[in-house]
Amino acid sequence: MRHLLFAAAAVIALPVHAQDQAATVRIMDEGLSHSQVMTTAQHLTDVIGPRLTNSPQMRQAEAWTQAKFAEWGLKNVHKEGFDFGRGWSIERSSVRMVSPRPLQLTAIPIAWTPATNGTLSAPIVVAPMKKARDFAQYRGKLAGKIVLVSSPGEVSERKRPVFSRLSDEDLGKMDAYDVPHHDPDADARELKNADFEKERDAFLKAEGALAYATISYRDGMLVHGEGYMFETGKSPSLPGVQIAAEDYRRLARLAKTGAAPTLEIVSDVRYDDSDRQAYNVFAEIPGTDPKAGYVMAGAHLDSWVAGDGATDNAAGSAVVMEAARILAKLGVRPKRTIRFALWNGEEQALLGSLAWVEKSLATRGGPNDPPLVGERRYYEWPKRWPINPQPGYKDLAAYFNVDNGSGKFRGIYTENNPAAAAIFREWMVPFQGLGMTTVAAGRTDGTDHVFMQSVGAPGFQFIQDPLEYSSRTHHSSADTFDHLKEEDMRQGATILASFLLNAADAAKPMPRPPLPTRPAVTNPFAYPDPEETN
Amino acid sequence: MRHLLFAAAAVIALPVHAQDQAATVRIMDEGLSHSQVMTTAQHLTDVIGPRLTNSPQMRQAEAWTQAKFAEWGLKNVHKEGFDFGRGWSIERSSVRMVSPRPLQLTAIPIAWTPATNGTLSAPIVVAPMKKARDFAQYRGKLAGKIVLVSSPGEVSERKRPVFSRLSDEDLGKMDAYDVPHHDPDADARELKNADFEKERDAFLKAEGALAYATISYRDGMLVHGEGYMFETGKSPSLPGVQIAAEDYRRLARLAKTGAAPTLEIVSDVRYDDSDRQAYNVFAEIPGTDPKAGYVMAGAHLDSWVAGDGATDNAAGSAVVMEAARILAKLGVRPKRTIRFALWNGEEQALLGSLAWVEKSLATRGGPNDPPLVGERRYYEWPKRWPINPQPGYKDLAAYFNVDNGSGKFRGIYTENNPAAAAIFREWMVPFQGLGMTTVAAGRTDGTDHVFMQSVGAPGFQFIQDPLEYSSRTHHSSADTFDHLKEEDMRQGATILASFLLNAADAAKPMPRPPLPTRPAVTNPFAYPDPEETN
Repeated sequence: MRHLLFAAAAVIALPVHAQDQAATVRIMDEGLSHSQVMTTAQHLTDVIGPRLTNSPQMRQAEAWTQAKFAEWGLKNVHKEGFDFGRGWSIERSSVRMVSPRPLQLTAIPIAWTPATNGTLSAPIVVAPMKKARDFAQYRGKLAGKIVLVSSPGEVSERKRPVFSRLSDEDLGKMDAYDVPHHDPDADARELKNADFEKERDAFLKAEGALAYATISYRDGMLVHGEGYMFETGKSPSLPGVQIAAEDYRRLARLAKTGAAPTLEIVSDVRYDDSDRQAYNVFAEIPGTDPKAGYVMAGAHLDSWVAGDGATDNAAGSAVVMEAARILAKLGVRPKRTIRFALWNGEEQALLGSLAWVEKSLATRGGPNDPPLVGERRYYEWPKRWPINPQPGYKDLAAYFNVDNGSGKFRGIYTENNPAAAAIFREWMVPFQGLGMTTVAAGRTDGTDHVFMQSVGAPGFQFIQDPLEYSSRTHHSSADTFDHLKEEDMRQGATILASFLLNAADAAKPMPRPPLPTRPAVTNPFAYPDPEETN
Repeated sequence: MRHLLFAAAAVIALPVHAQDQAATVRIMDEGLSHSQVMTTAQHLTDVIGPRLTNSPQMRQAEAWTQAKFAEWGLKNVHKEGFDFGRGWSIERSSVRMVSPRPLQLTAIPIAWTPATNGTLSAPIVVAPMKKARDFAQYRGKLAGKIVLVSSPGEVSERKRPVFSRLSDEDLGKMDAYDVPHHDPDADARELKNADFEKERDAFLKAEGALAYATISYRDGMLVHGEGYMFETGKSPSLPGVQIAAEDYRRLARLAKTGAAPTLEIVSDVRYDDSDRQAYNVFAEIPGTDPKAGYVMAGAHLDSWVAGDGATDNAAGSAVVMEAARILAKLGVRPKRTIRFALWNGEEQALLGSLAWVEKSLATRGGPNDPPLVGERRYYEWPKRWPINPQPGYKDLAAYFNVDNGSGKFRGIYTENNPAAAAIFREWMVPFQGLGMTTVAAGRTDGTDHVFMQSVGAPGFQFIQDPLEYSSRTHHSSADTFDHLKEEDMRQGATILASFLLNAADAAKPMPRPPLPTRPAVTNPFAYPDPEETN
């Protein structure tokens, strides 16, 4: 109830005059009739390609986006580095079954695994492992083998459409506050699983295995190839490939019903250790009131290596860049500074935005907490207490994150901050005819506003039409420019530009939640399930 | 109305006693509790793999299926050859973009195209051609190039589910007689298009192009690779590959916005000219009454080369084989002979079943009609008049074709022969609890019963749950054993065995339509559209 009362108070307190309708109309003209959003997206995807953090392609993207911001007249264009690890890219790859019959398989090298140095030929062994306790049964059986480490499972029966938009009914169901849960047992399990990829690599190496293969988690011949051993000095020992589900399961069945198939793997991948820092890119439209703080829009520029990282997240990056271009083109002079951020390392534990949060908003934990590195930061950092605000903590008046594919904006989440609802409703009015209609109470997860939220900063995401994001493109080999929708992207960039200008010119900053403190355990009476904790 | 009256008459005339319910129960026990259908299908797909007509793998399948029929106690197991053309198979393949950036593409060699003999490297040129009149604009521009001959088009927005079963509502809508249409102009257009692949190959060769590429007709990174130049002495001149839609469209966009990408193609494919005949496989359970004729079930054993030809049509082949195994196991002694046919060359103009129809049922055309060869037989043969019945024309009492994926049987089409409806309704009764409920009046198309029907023989197909057949697996790289549904296949084989026994023991053969004669033109007043005929 506290939040709801707060919301009601905020509505009354807000000046309803604030919007500059003439500016909105100009933004709509520039964003809808003079858009460059698809040109930007096409360069990021087709020309540059996938943008794995610290890969040569991501370096290109860091440089190209800064050049574009500068060309469009943005100010204070720069990059800020943070410690990350190695670059990695694929030059050439092939996985082929040699026996019992020749067959070219669909597969992709797993990110940050080493090269095969030519052709690696070996029989497979199917040895599904999910936890370290699974290792024992395979001891002594893996030497000289390509180890299939995933359970083959079964094909899905996908009954929902691949492509979808939100109906009015769908939107009507979305306004649900996300009641917090705090389960320390679940946190512990999550942490334990985080290191499994490293443990498995060490086990396979110790056993003398030659390479490993995982199964793609989407069927229909899509592959993904995510891997997390990106830290310098901690690269995997063994080459690894993710094999399309159909191809993987065929191998597993053949191995069960006859002689183990032999594979030929060529994984010509390259590390790039020229710079272990990754870089977030920033650009600004300076505010007229230096004491008014800033508003910000951001999207992660990095991607995985399958496909071209189009819906995840050239789409969001192009929308954020286009909002910057529109506002710069119109020569707006907002009260607050409008900052644009292109994050890096999002696909690896949100490390880019986390580095920025620690520097600009708050640190977490006490003086005796050990330092956190690599992927574990994702799991451990938000569970450290207390939160220690940095100078400038309050300067961020609102942050808008874009990372849900290329679907049009259908509304916005208040992210459990219902005080924002009435403000957003007002800002949406000019865009109702473009399908932007809904304010939803709940929280969204898994991208760069999360660590801002976790320290009490006002970070938001938009409700977007899902299109094929979860069904097909997210992280997959089908994540290409083809799957971006031009009208949707124009609409999103236009609305983002308008929201940013409204937030920058608002008489008051967005209402903020209180500084978070350690929550009560949701169910202190429960016992952990031994199956899950062992 | 004539047909409906006829159907009513048939119901009255039929002996309702005929079904041997004890036999049905035994068939259900063998087919549902002791099934081997998935073991058969797994061998055809995983172990043998794709079965392009006359490929080494199809030769294996011809031999293995005969051995299984013999092992199961079927009689008169043999193969019958017909003139076809070359074998062809893929040993190794790779399509890779070299510039503007390295990228492994998803692609497949097009059936019967020649090998590259090592690595072929060349820039692309986008030159979409649909008809011979499109050639002129590309003259002089294709030498030394890899020619992208398809229009890039746009990604689909697939709003229907990938996986589906027929609802009662869907089934309720299916009972619709298929009113015949006869449009000689459409026939002429069809014939004209049939030769385009050959004309394009000749044009590309004359222009000095090095290879060509088409776009996959399904997006989501699936590939297919169908090609039709299988005749001996008429192989394509140029290596050809089908590229995944997303990869193809990226190439086309890059060529439009910058320097033409360069590709590296490796197509290590092999012709096999050891035998230009292809073979249909037959097996029988002999009837006790040599004058009663025979009933038959059939499925094509051949497939395309992407995937393992699982739903198209190892599924149907395994169901037909399993029905044979069930009936042989039970030692049935039917009045009519029950014949099982595994057709060849179905994917190339139904050439296997057509050869059998000409030998066993009827020829078409007059003494002065020129001979028909290759793929043109598909278009021209059914349009020749008159039909000349062969000795034995009337002996085929009923034919059941299985070629609609692995979905369970939900009913049966009368194929515009409503006199069969009441008989089928009676035969379905024991299987209503297994989802077999519907008799639909209409015709089905595109597989091996078509040429039987075209000469007036009683050929039928079952209504099957679609599953992923048209959405994903049909002819595609995802057509693997994974996508076969065990319960569905058991159900189908069981019902097929029962239908065959009922048809073999029925007091009278299935009611037949009259011998077809040349139909009246549907709309003799229409003018052809010049756009379509030029």
